Amino acid sequence: MSQRVVISSNIAETLTEAVGRVEFDRLFVLTDNTTIELCWSVIENQPCVADAKHICIGSTDIFKNLDTLASVWTALQEGGATRHSLMICLGGGMVTDLGGFAASTFKRGIHYINIPTTLLSMVDASVGGKTGINFGGLKNEIGVFNEADTVILDTVFLKTLDDANLLSGYAEMLKHGLISNDEHFHTIINTEPKAVTSSLIAENVAVKERIVTEDPHEKGLRKALNFGHTIGHAFESFAMHEERPILHGHAVALGMVCELYLSCIRCGFPTTTMRQVVEFIRQHYPVLAYTCDDYPTLFQLMQHDKKNTGSTINFTLLSGIGQLQLNQTATQEEIYETLDFLREGM
Amino acid sequence: MSQRVVISSNIAETLTEAVGRVEFDRLFVLTDNTTIELCWSVIENQPCVADAKHICIGSTDIFKNLDTLASVWTALQEGGATRHSLMICLGGGMVTDLGGFAASTFKRGIHYINIPTTLLSMVDASVGGKTGINFGGLKNEIGVFNEADTVILDTVFLKTLDDANLLSGYAEMLKHGLISNDEHFHTIINTEPKAVTSSLIAENVAVKERIVTEDPHEKGLRKALNFGHTIGHAFESFAMHEERPILHGHAVALGMVCELYLSCIRCGFPTTTMRQVVEFIRQHYPVLAYTCDDYPTLFQLMQHDKKNTGSTINFTLLSGIGQLQLNQTATQEEIYETLDFLREGM
Repeated sequence: MSQRVVISSNIAETLTEAVGRVEFDRLFVLTDNTTIELCWSVIENQPCVADAKHICIGSTDIFKNLDTLASVWTALQEGGATRHSLMICLGGGMVTDLGGFAASTFKRGIHYINIPTTLLSMVDASVGGKTGINFGGLKNEIGVFNEADTVILDTVFLKTLDDANLLSGYAEMLKHGLISNDEHFHTIINTEPKAVTSSLIAENVAVKERIVTEDPHEKGLRKALNFGHTIGHAFESFAMHEERPILHGHAVALGMVCELYLSCIRCGFPTTTMRQVVEFIRQHYPVLAYTCDDYPTLFQLMQHDKKNTGSTINFTLLSGIGQLQLNQTATQEEIYETLDFLREGM
Repeated sequence: MSQRVVISSNIAETLTEAVGRVEFDRLFVLTDNTTIELCWSVIENQPCVADAKHICIGSTDIFKNLDTLASVWTALQEGGATRHSLMICLGGGMVTDLGGFAASTFKRGIHYINIPTTLLSMVDASVGGKTGINFGGLKNEIGVFNEADTVILDTVFLKTLDDANLLSGYAEMLKHGLISNDEHFHTIINTEPKAVTSSLIAENVAVKERIVTEDPHEKGLRKALNFGHTIGHAFESFAMHEERPILHGHAVALGMVCELYLSCIRCGFPTTTMRQVVEFIRQHYPVLAYTCDDYPTLFQLMQHDKKNTGSTINFTLLSGIGQLQLNQTATQEEIYETLDFLREGM
């Protein structure tokens, strides 16, 4: 069954319709400590969720782990979930990724609906069916590809979002701009993140949908979506290990600075466009503190990236806006040079 | 990609060919404490596995749990597995189910080859892509549907099997006889289990393959394969809780006695055929000790079966050999009566 992504302007109607499409015996709603407070109130009065059993997990990426996953399985079991039950995941990417994985594996798979409540999860985690948890210190190390029945995108939830989280999502939108075409790129880079609209979100999700449809299991084209992520994930893991975690989109923004630099030196990406993007990121995103002593650690983290074959680090680079260069690599020296560039340029 | 099931008479050739079909960077072999001793020696001298890294887990169903699963993920991580690595699972259903689940979820899925080494795993776990672990006291509660690249069936491994395990597998073959046709049923019930041949295994696997191909996600016809399993699984869980575990096939054999009785009283299955099957089971399989006091526990365990909708217990019953009656139910009274029948008839 293929997933429906619904751009909603009336959450009550959209939710009722989405729940009504599934035949189920028991309904569960998964939230985290933040979304139970800020987002549940938006939908709790809808009759279609009146009988839902609640499962609430800790918020933030720290809880995206095996213990939390096991606690969701146990809660489903204790709530009498069967293979014919339905789960609604209401939250950011952590809730939709972990909840999607829990649903995909409970009794070998139950139906689920994702309602991403952050800009990041709307534009990034909403399509593509990636589910999973962190494991052994690595991001999204364990999971499956499995799509939700319906994904509901409604900007009503963005009102609950602080600036840092809004910007985190906007980094993925910027990435979609860079890998699509000049027009979309210019709209993205000339929009103030706080003024994001549902039509811009819809356009952005469409970029991702086109890519995922052509390559559901990340064999080729889908690697385009990894732009900024090989180094971005390393920053994210590094910050997590250092116990000063940074938001995913912030890590990706910094990763894009590095991978644009690599794109310039290896693929002839125009330096002026790179400068424009770096300036946008410098204006909006915080720096990450690291020194030359951290380079080997960062390099090692890049080697753990799922996209690699053996010990070669795999990058998606660009020779221009929308001009993808898949399966590129770089030497350790070049990577150290790009880490210098980020430290000095931001 | 669809799974190949290869009936092999030359394990060296078959394995070399199966490994050669996959492009991979690192190779892992998963065994358990039993198969590393008894089965690995059969293939260890093949050049295609010379560089394999070993992962060995505890044997028997007790270890088919989340801790073991996590230990396999960690071993893959520590062995430098990437998304392009390959794992060979060499063992009974516990190794192929848990190993298949580990492979299906590590970095959202790596390639794997299953080499079932018991009769049960050859005829039962080899096709259908069911992977998983036990959780919260329930059998195969967590898992996914995902097929191996290749499944190799070679009777060379049956030489390592004791009688109890051989009979455990034969129970599933008897089930395939009951749900297919008169001819196959009569061959099965008139063969001495110890004299099982690779052609009989091939014929048996074909029964399952036909059903699974028509209904990969157990929406309808595939429920045929659950014959004997609703009550069989309850016996298996019950025995596990009582810390005197019984083999899966033994539980299914006893479950079939009960579900044939239900088939007689609810669907008009011929009593003489039922008597014939009960006699075969009585001759070959040990009894399970339980009393009337255990009925509520057993009933509750049946209610946890994955095939149920809400709290109604779902059975696949028969009105004759090969004549399936899907989505049947039974009252608590009838189920208690059938538990009486098993206690008295065996």
